[in-house]
Amino acid sequence: EVARYMSPLHASDVGDVLEAISPADRFELINLLGELFDYSALTEIDDSVRLELMDLLPNNDIARGVQELDSDDAVYILEDIEGGDREEILAALPTFERLALKRSLDFPEETAGRRMQTEFIAIPPFWTVGQTIDYMREADDLPDDFHQIYVVDPSYNLLGTLALDRMLRAKRPAVIKDIMNSTIIEVEAEEDQEEAARMFERYDLVEVAVVDETRRLVGVLTVDDIVDVIQEEAGEDIKRLAGVGNEEISGNVWNAVRSRLTWLGVNLVTAIMASLVIGMFDATIQQMVALAVLMPIVASMGGNAGTQTMTVAVRALSTRELDSYNVRRLITREFLVGVVNGVVFALVIGVVAAIWFANPLLGLVIGAAMVINMIAAGISGIMIPLTLDKLKIDPAIASSAFVTTVTDVVGFMAFLYIAAHAFNLF
Amino acid sequence: EVARYMSPLHASDVGDVLEAISPADRFELINLLGELFDYSALTEIDDSVRLELMDLLPNNDIARGVQELDSDDAVYILEDIEGGDREEILAALPTFERLALKRSLDFPEETAGRRMQTEFIAIPPFWTVGQTIDYMREADDLPDDFHQIYVVDPSYNLLGTLALDRMLRAKRPAVIKDIMNSTIIEVEAEEDQEEAARMFERYDLVEVAVVDETRRLVGVLTVDDIVDVIQEEAGEDIKRLAGVGNEEISGNVWNAVRSRLTWLGVNLVTAIMASLVIGMFDATIQQMVALAVLMPIVASMGGNAGTQTMTVAVRALSTRELDSYNVRRLITREFLVGVVNGVVFALVIGVVAAIWFANPLLGLVIGAAMVINMIAAGISGIMIPLTLDKLKIDPAIASSAFVTTVTDVVGFMAFLYIAAHAFNLF
Ligand SMILES: [Mg+2]
Ligand SMILES: [Mg+2]
Ligand SMILES: [Mg+2]
Ligand SMILES: [Mg+2]
Ligand SMILES: [Mg+2]
Ligand SMILES: [Mg+2]
Ligand SMILES: [Mg+2]
Ligand SMILES: [Mg+2]
Ligand SMILES: [Mg+2]
Ligand SMILES: [Mg+2]
Ligand SMILES: [Mg+2]
Ligand SMILES: [Mg+2]
Ligand SMILES: [Mg+2]
Repeated sequence: EVARYMSPLHASDVGDVLEAISPADRFELINLLGELFDYSALTEIDDSVRLELMDLLPNNDIARGVQELDSDDAVYILEDIEGGDREEILAALPTFERLALKRSLDFPEETAGRRMQTEFIAIPPFWTVGQTIDYMREADDLPDDFHQIYVVDPSYNLLGTLALDRMLRAKRPAVIKDIMNSTIIEVEAEEDQEEAARMFERYDLVEVAVVDETRRLVGVLTVDDIVDVIQEEAGEDIKRLAGVGNEEISGNVWNAVRSRLTWLGVNLVTAIMASLVIGMFDATIQQMVALAVLMPIVASMGGNAGTQTMTVAVRALSTRELDSYNVRRLITREFLVGVVNGVVFALVIGVVAAIWFANPLLGLVIGAAMVINMIAAGISGIMIPLTLDKLKIDPAIASSAFVTTVTDVVGFMAFLYIAAHAFNLF
Repeated sequence: EVARYMSPLHASDVGDVLEAISPADRFELINLLGELFDYSALTEIDDSVRLELMDLLPNNDIARGVQELDSDDAVYILEDIEGGDREEILAALPTFERLALKRSLDFPEETAGRRMQTEFIAIPPFWTVGQTIDYMREADDLPDDFHQIYVVDPSYNLLGTLALDRMLRAKRPAVIKDIMNSTIIEVEAEEDQEEAARMFERYDLVEVAVVDETRRLVGVLTVDDIVDVIQEEAGEDIKRLAGVGNEEISGNVWNAVRSRLTWLGVNLVTAIMASLVIGMFDATIQQMVALAVLMPIVASMGGNAGTQTMTVAVRALSTRELDSYNVRRLITREFLVGVVNGVVFALVIGVVAAIWFANPLLGLVIGAAMVINMIAAGISGIMIPLTLDKLKIDPAIASSAFVTTVTDVVGFMAFLYIAAHAFNLF
């Protein structure tokens, strides 16, 4: 009776049902459905929910369930299971499936090899369209969905691809070699999934061949999984820029605390450094408390301007829009943006401060500090991500800390130093 | 001779060549290629480069060029051209093409209708596989690439879809009705492109039907364009969170200045508000300069913690992971995260401050202020994006300003107020 309601649902919808109910109910529902439960629903739920379920389900059931899936989905489920359980599940699989999954699992995380599916259709170039169609009608180990066919030589080197729409428009006697697309687009299995995603974007692909180091075809990547990669990588960049680890909203308080502690710790150190700068001018501040009132404005504006530039740079690096062609132009632009915004906001805050404290010289001082800090923000906002990228450190992860340190230190230092000299307060 | 080098290149590669050369060379290259120039390259270059080129090219050439494209690419090029020129180009097109493009252009920007292509294959349910294949072999107005066929009734209401791989595995006499997928997934033309992208992700689509208000099939969305939508929307969120407008790295200084001025202006106002809070305690600070040295630490830690929570919330809202099921749990979690991180960093900074200024009471004061501000950060970090989302304001655009205002004001206020009372400094 449950099966009647659940079986017409798409895996994503089943996943949502699983996420919405209690852990005990999840286990019960899957047991109730038994063989009717489609394990692909487990690729559509949060990692934490899946891991919990994997712990509860007997390894034999998992083995039976993942066997039905395309290898990429099976790998997605298996990769997060602990060593011992994983071995047990793999051991329960038929040899052919086991070896395919093991090979995928041997590739590092977030590579094309880890994400590929090993189900694909490979044919020789001398077949005709008719032969190919007949083969597809009879074969029973085809992928669940496919959009192109791979043409290979006897050692499985890729010779070309044939999109299904091209094949459908050709006559039965046409020879594959003559109608295939022989512009070869392929991804190495060791390549980062992000690089593969960029190829899909660039060449408007729906599938791409994955090859090993000897250029033999070992699997394919499909666009539906690449869409997930793109979302995941974009989410990662957004979170890293804000100093949040790879946390999920389903995680508990401890996951969240842990994912944020590092960044807050780094920020505490940089904030203390800024305080040390202020501390150097304590005598100055004591004689003119207006400086304490105004100084956070200079630091805050610099921090925001620096974050703007840095975000544009990090995003452009991650989409590969920023390259050696335009890097020099961008550095010049960000410097000039710093100058312009510095002057604009120097005028505004200069007038405000001069009137507020009835002190025109104070207006001049804060204006000068503002210009200096906005330029520092522009330069550090672009140079820091570029340097980190050169050093092979993800600029999304570390740029913020450096940029805000620069703008805090420069902001407080410039303002208090100029003020001390302008008003002769030491 | 140029054509020999350029014609084997993919549109994206031609686009890169165009971006790398000077504006005059771009114009010359396109003229040299003449009819051989594939206008789809223009969908792969920066908006600013394309607009400049469109100004230079004669309207008649543009009309001839876009005629060769699928309608979505034609619309992509035409939508940014000014009214008068656009009318002229449209007038130069054959009636059928003109009407299709006009209909797409009538839909609001960033909707499914604006992004759809009007080339698709629609067949009646009573055709056989053989009839369908014969039709596709002969028809010459087919889309450039397609992955599924749409089954419609006489008034173009969608009855089902048929993926090409299913069709290839069926025998020629099979009737479409019997093998089609009759689970109907469709997008309304007025729907936001982001909503459509979510359907692709959720149901692993490569194409989806776009229907008008009477549920008639008017076009299709393809996954290669949705991949671009996902990248664009993710980039938009990242930039909006940092207070940057929709700027491109190819833009000039003025574009960049304009795109950032608003946010810096807002930040100036909130920074002045924070200064007003500090100003309320000027007598207190004058008597104890250590307060001026330490106060930015409390504000800065709160700002970072608030940004972390806000970023997680904004991302979860934009991927629809955050919904009414888990919102209450998330609010509780963020409150508790604020408490835990508040206590952790209160201990650290409390000890540091107590030792630094040889004043244990000062350590207590800053610790208390830290706990208060971290809790304020957690609560505002989650409640502000949720409220903006409820009010149909994009939380990515406005959350930062509100969150950092809260953490600055609460941070300075809590620290200085508690200090004033603890040390009796008014
Ligand atoms: Mg889900
Ligand atoms: Mg995983
Ligand atoms: Mg593309
Ligand atoms: Mg395209
Ligand atoms: Mg897959
Ligand atoms: Mg990555
Ligand atoms: Mg990345
Ligand atoms: Mg556009
Ligand atoms: Mg999906
Ligand atoms: Mg999937
Ligand atoms: Mg298209
Ligand atoms: Mg949008
Ligand atoms: Mg959006």
